[in-house]
Amino acid sequence: MCANEKQISLLMSKMKQKFLETRRQSEKLIQNLEIEDFSVQPADFVSPPKWHLAHSTWFFEQFVLKDFDIHYKLFNADYAYLFNSYYNNVGERVLRPNRGLMTRPTVNDVLQYRKYVTTNVEKLLDETNKKELLDVVEIGINHEQQHQELLAYDIKYILGNQATQPTIQLDLLLEEETQKQEFIAIEEGVYTIGHQKDSFCFDNELGVHKTYIQPFEISNKLITNGEYMAFIESGGYKNFNLWHADGWDFINENQISAPMYWHDIEGVYHYYTYNGFLPVDKNKPLTHISYFEAYAYAQWAGMRLPTEFEWEVASKYFNWGQLWEWTSSAYLPYPNFKTAKGALGEYNGKFMVNQQVLRGASIATAKNHKRHTYRNFFQTDMRWLFSGVRLVK
Amino acid sequence: MCANEKQISLLMSKMKQKFLETRRQSEKLIQNLEIEDFSVQPADFVSPPKWHLAHSTWFFEQFVLKDFDIHYKLFNADYAYLFNSYYNNVGERVLRPNRGLMTRPTVNDVLQYRKYVTTNVEKLLDETNKKELLDVVEIGINHEQQHQELLAYDIKYILGNQATQPTIQLDLLLEEETQKQEFIAIEEGVYTIGHQKDSFCFDNELGVHKTYIQPFEISNKLITNGEYMAFIESGGYKNFNLWHADGWDFINENQISAPMYWHDIEGVYHYYTYNGFLPVDKNKPLTHISYFEAYAYAQWAGMRLPTEFEWEVASKYFNWGQLWEWTSSAYLPYPNFKTAKGALGEYNGKFMVNQQVLRGASIATAKNHKRHTYRNFFQTDMRWLFSGVRLVK
Amino acid sequence: MCANEKQISLLMSKMKQKFLETRRQSEKLIQNLEIEDFSVQPADFVSPPKWHLAHSTWFFEQFVLKDFDIHYKLFNADYAYLFNSYYNNVGERVLRPNRGLMTRPTVNDVLQYRKYVTTNVEKLLDETNKKELLDVVEIGINHEQQHQELLAYDIKYILGNQATQPTIQLDLLLEEETQKQEFIAIEEGVYTIGHQKDSFCFDNELGVHKTYIQPFEISNKLITNGEYMAFIESGGYKNFNLWHADGWDFINENQISAPMYWHDIEGVYHYYTYNGFLPVDKNKPLTHISYFEAYAYAQWAGMRLPTEFEWEVASKYFNWGQLWEWTSSAYLPYPNFKTAKGALGEYNGKFMVNQQVLRGASIATAKNHKRHTYRNFFQTDMRWLFSGVRLVK
Amino acid sequence: MCANEKQISLLMSKMKQKFLETRRQSEKLIQNLEIEDFSVQPADFVSPPKWHLAHSTWFFEQFVLKDFDIHYKLFNADYAYLFNSYYNNVGERVLRPNRGLMTRPTVNDVLQYRKYVTTNVEKLLDETNKKELLDVVEIGINHEQQHQELLAYDIKYILGNQATQPTIQLDLLLEEETQKQEFIAIEEGVYTIGHQKDSFCFDNELGVHKTYIQPFEISNKLITNGEYMAFIESGGYKNFNLWHADGWDFINENQISAPMYWHDIEGVYHYYTYNGFLPVDKNKPLTHISYFEAYAYAQWAGMRLPTEFEWEVASKYFNWGQLWEWTSSAYLPYPNFKTAKGALGEYNGKFMVNQQVLRGASIATAKNHKRHTYRNFFQTDMRWLFSGVRLVK
Repeated sequence: MCANEKQISLLMSKMKQKFLETRRQSEKLIQNLEIEDFSVQPADFVSPPKWHLAHSTWFFEQFVLKDFDIHYKLFNADYAYLFNSYYNNVGERVLRPNRGLMTRPTVNDVLQYRKYVTTNVEKLLDETNKKELLDVVEIGINHEQQHQELLAYDIKYILGNQATQPTIQLDLLLEEETQKQEFIAIEEGVYTIGHQKDSFCFDNELGVHKTYIQPFEISNKLITNGEYMAFIESGGYKNFNLWHADGWDFINENQISAPMYWHDIEGVYHYYTYNGFLPVDKNKPLTHISYFEAYAYAQWAGMRLPTEFEWEVASKYFNWGQLWEWTSSAYLPYPNFKTAKGALGEYNGKFMVNQQVLRGASIATAKNHKRHTYRNFFQTDMRWLFSGVRLVK
Repeated sequence: MCANEKQISLLMSKMKQKFLETRRQSEKLIQNLEIEDFSVQPADFVSPPKWHLAHSTWFFEQFVLKDFDIHYKLFNADYAYLFNSYYNNVGERVLRPNRGLMTRPTVNDVLQYRKYVTTNVEKLLDETNKKELLDVVEIGINHEQQHQELLAYDIKYILGNQATQPTIQLDLLLEEETQKQEFIAIEEGVYTIGHQKDSFCFDNELGVHKTYIQPFEISNKLITNGEYMAFIESGGYKNFNLWHADGWDFINENQISAPMYWHDIEGVYHYYTYNGFLPVDKNKPLTHISYFEAYAYAQWAGMRLPTEFEWEVASKYFNWGQLWEWTSSAYLPYPNFKTAKGALGEYNGKFMVNQQVLRGASIATAKNHKRHTYRNFFQTDMRWLFSGVRLVK
Repeated sequence: MCANEKQISLLMSKMKQKFLETRRQSEKLIQNLEIEDFSVQPADFVSPPKWHLAHSTWFFEQFVLKDFDIHYKLFNADYAYLFNSYYNNVGERVLRPNRGLMTRPTVNDVLQYRKYVTTNVEKLLDETNKKELLDVVEIGINHEQQHQELLAYDIKYILGNQATQPTIQLDLLLEEETQKQEFIAIEEGVYTIGHQKDSFCFDNELGVHKTYIQPFEISNKLITNGEYMAFIESGGYKNFNLWHADGWDFINENQISAPMYWHDIEGVYHYYTYNGFLPVDKNKPLTHISYFEAYAYAQWAGMRLPTEFEWEVASKYFNWGQLWEWTSSAYLPYPNFKTAKGALGEYNGKFMVNQQVLRGASIATAKNHKRHTYRNFFQTDMRWLFSGVRLVK
Repeated sequence: MCANEKQISLLMSKMKQKFLETRRQSEKLIQNLEIEDFSVQPADFVSPPKWHLAHSTWFFEQFVLKDFDIHYKLFNADYAYLFNSYYNNVGERVLRPNRGLMTRPTVNDVLQYRKYVTTNVEKLLDETNKKELLDVVEIGINHEQQHQELLAYDIKYILGNQATQPTIQLDLLLEEETQKQEFIAIEEGVYTIGHQKDSFCFDNELGVHKTYIQPFEISNKLITNGEYMAFIESGGYKNFNLWHADGWDFINENQISAPMYWHDIEGVYHYYTYNGFLPVDKNKPLTHISYFEAYAYAQWAGMRLPTEFEWEVASKYFNWGQLWEWTSSAYLPYPNFKTAKGALGEYNGKFMVNQQVLRGASIATAKNHKRHTYRNFFQTDMRWLFSGVRLVK
């Protein structure tokens, strides 16, 4: 074994650890669910937990095992059809799968599928020394970590909208924002934006480029529930001057007058959490608000949301990572953005329209996912994610 | 114990046997389901199997135990809210239950609920000698039997619309219609319609009355799959002259060109059955057709469907009971129809508009449900039931 | 000219008078409209006045002139496509006409079209002596008269739902129901139903047959606005026990709490009439209620609606003709009903499902349309017609 | 009269000329319409021509006459309710106006309204010397000019979607793009963006600021119909790799396979123009494409759309003004953007979400509306505007 081979072998071994840890983490998230909780889809933007578990597995089967293991035998040929999120291959069967109505394969079948694929990838990493394999497995790990975060949102939505509001005891707790309120001043000038290290990043963070930033001051704290209650009490949801026209339609058509999961019980706001139905904690950061609500709050406060560039430049000066922070930037390609080749190229570019960038990370984000160049993005009416608000003046 | 008491005691004992048998039959129907199959609602007209099991139990709790057992303690106060089909009591909770998204209570919880209520009703029948109790338990039994039939339809719909089309091995098999084709002539005259015995019937069968019937001839056989294939092949689904205007819209908007569960696989019709995906058997009776299709077929054949009165008068001259038979009669109250008092009065009368009567029974109908005065009814576009066609000329 | 020829000539001449009178009547109905009022379609069940004028003209062009006048030249080949209500011929043009968006041909174009066709039919009646022509022209006249009644409903709907509620001064006024309340008793027995004269009738009135009627008593009066106010005030729209399940959904989904055109202005009910916005007259008969409302009112009053057979038998004993009267009979074919051949056969049979029969006539019905065997029919949620309620006990 | 007064008087006089010219221009646009064409609303994004005429008049009544003329008497108090686009005042009437169903007031009423308001504003400009008046009248003129452009789009949509495709002879003709294809290189650097002159601009052009631009090359020509045909013929509408995910859904759900108004007549593309239905001219610039299509075309061509900043910087080097040019920039506020106070502040800011910026002007744009800082904006699926494509590499 020459030096280079040793090095690759070491990288393979490290990647295997990360891979197994990631797989275990997904299974840990669902350990307290009942079988019944795995198959429902209470809203279009929610996927059933079973689907996340199977889809992130299919990704390894499709892009790792089928490409790198010539002896690999598919666990079940139907699964590629059922758990592919892209749908651009037309299957032979007459009926299209509807995620929330797919009771078969069962949860147990899917867990068997996970085990089978995990074991085969593990074996492959032990036996192969192609460097390209590392790249694809790393993408697969990051992909599964993204689905872990969605899984956390979806579990909350599935349980939090049940009449019986069951608890799940997931250890994803927000901490109070107790630091003293300060505004950090950033100087005007040309700054460089984008991921500049060797480490993993998504294609949307590349296209490193310069941008001109005007002077601004940014808060060291997230908006808290208490602060948002003041907005509600002063009639924030009833004053159309604070809202985008689309936002005003959104809250009125959906009769929204508080963040998602909040309920007014005889004059006291309560919210659903993984650990139960509790009075809202005024010192904890506000979450589960849409971009429309984040914007209206900023208008009411006489301030504004940061651009994603301002956020990237200023983020070293404050603590972040409890919640994804809505920015005032639409999700657009960076200058010189290049889509990756092949199916992996469908990952980001095709979503760069009519969405808004969020920066930071949340309590549900995998540790190695946290980086200050990371560009998350959602439609402006999404509320089930762990979103938050930081203001600029 | 006097003679009268003995007699009541005997009736109680018989009712208990019927009751326990009915409860067991529901549980037998679902014995091969996976937990995942119990909670989905793939269409508005389908209820999740879990809901049927709980709702038929709630009925006994609400109308039997709460009224006749002063010591009865509710299994769970929430269940009255979650499994009441009437919804006219407003619950305290913020969120309304959506049957297909209700993952809690779990299947196991519901089976515990069944056991608890079954045991309590059993005990009550052992210990009570109020005659009124018998009437309510009998209604509860008939109610649960109706839900058993719906359960059979819903299980088929849930599994038959899955991409993987799993089998369930339910023992509900249609037999071939092999008798020689004959038409039975019935004479013109005034006939008496309605349930005239002492035995149980629903309120919609009462209002015994006379009706004048013109002379007619009715087939001794149901239409078979082979006969319906001839209709399809001759362009029946493409000739608007055969259809009601609403029927024509229905098949075009829903792109319907064959009975439900039929798929054309390279020129050969197959259908989904509880026992798998099989080529259509030409000698078996046609089923899973809407009223619109039954009517169009009759138009094509140059005949017509019987009225429900013709069917009632003629039914003693032919075999029936494999399939519910669409009649040309709209579902309307009989002369002198009286709605029962109280919540039980919501049973039938309020549905007497925009539906069509079916007569007979099906392979999924409980034995003691079969009687020639029984009036079943469904909307004209329903296809998931075991419906069939018998012609008149 | 022989005797027979003379007779036909006389019949032709009489038919011409009826024809011209009918054409004039349509034009009289629209004489006070503004050009803008002719092209809108504020609801699916409403047709623009321009469309009625053109469609009833197309009917004569298609079934009279094209078939009987070999020299006839189409006014405009597009019109057959634009004003055919059947849509079963596919036009060459790319775009399908949407009645309410069709600004061209203009109202003036359509009036020219009417004149051209009227003149040609008139000429044909002068010059032809084929007896078959008489039948088709008679159908055309009756067809146009039906559209006159719809025109009256549609004009009211178009203007009555405008913010400015303009008046039109149509001379269609209801009279008070001031006769003393009586109930007319009809004896049990076998009665003959259907049109038995030589005169014109629609195919749905044929199939003369016997029916058995139980004894009943029918009101000599229509329900008045004042009586209906009592129903509203006693909570009729809020008591689900009075309603069909579909009716309850209908009034709740559409937030209906009074007849169409009624508005509660500071505690006093007003309604829109052709002559303006006025306080509701308590002594005039109630109108613009759906079948669901008619049924709920009857339930509340402890009575019921008549069947169409009861109505036909009893109608000689009371005054009728102000309003179409909802019956409890679904619209079904009579025994031995035969559909007419060809396109005219699409007239009635294909609508015999999910509708309810109304009997009588209304202030907007042409005189010669009034006969006690006439079967009108509408869906159970229609309210823009001149409907009324007569009770049976 | 002092020097200052003279100057104001002169400005008033000039403004009056602009005002009268603008009013006449609106009336010129609609001179060939039939009365029937004025009241329809064939799509949500279309307003009836009558509404545009009345709404731009209401604007002068509301913000000029009511504020500056103490003797002014409203033409009709209802009109403020009917022709206010903001709807945030609740009217007294029961019924909300639906623009396409409002047949009254008539076209003639609205033209009287225009005349009355025009005369009163004219008189006011003659008699007043308040400088603030000039600002509001100027906004009113610009507002009416914007509606003139929408009027041109809406007239085309109303007529171009009729089965009879009538012509209107509007003098808005595109010219061929015959110049030689060149790409203009712009250097990297910090540029200043925004309106910097004293002349009129909208609030969204303010917030003059610096931006850093990377080097780029921009085409001197718009994409032509001929070039777009090559895209279609090579399967551009069928290759999902070229499209945004939302764009792919949009074209599939709406079955879009060519620009709006194009129809394939036996293999030859034709389009509807104001002057009739003609074969598509290959040398004229492509128009009536959504942002989604503009983006897909650029992907196919291996280039991209310019940002709005690139466009503003480069626009002095090429001819523009035939068509609004889709940019890759989302519509967002400039740094330091301030919303105007009061109702006029609703003009722009509230639309700054989920829309895309277009730069330039079109053949339907008023002359004085053309400036290189103008920011037009529409949703990404809008196609009825005069949109075009210019590429960057």
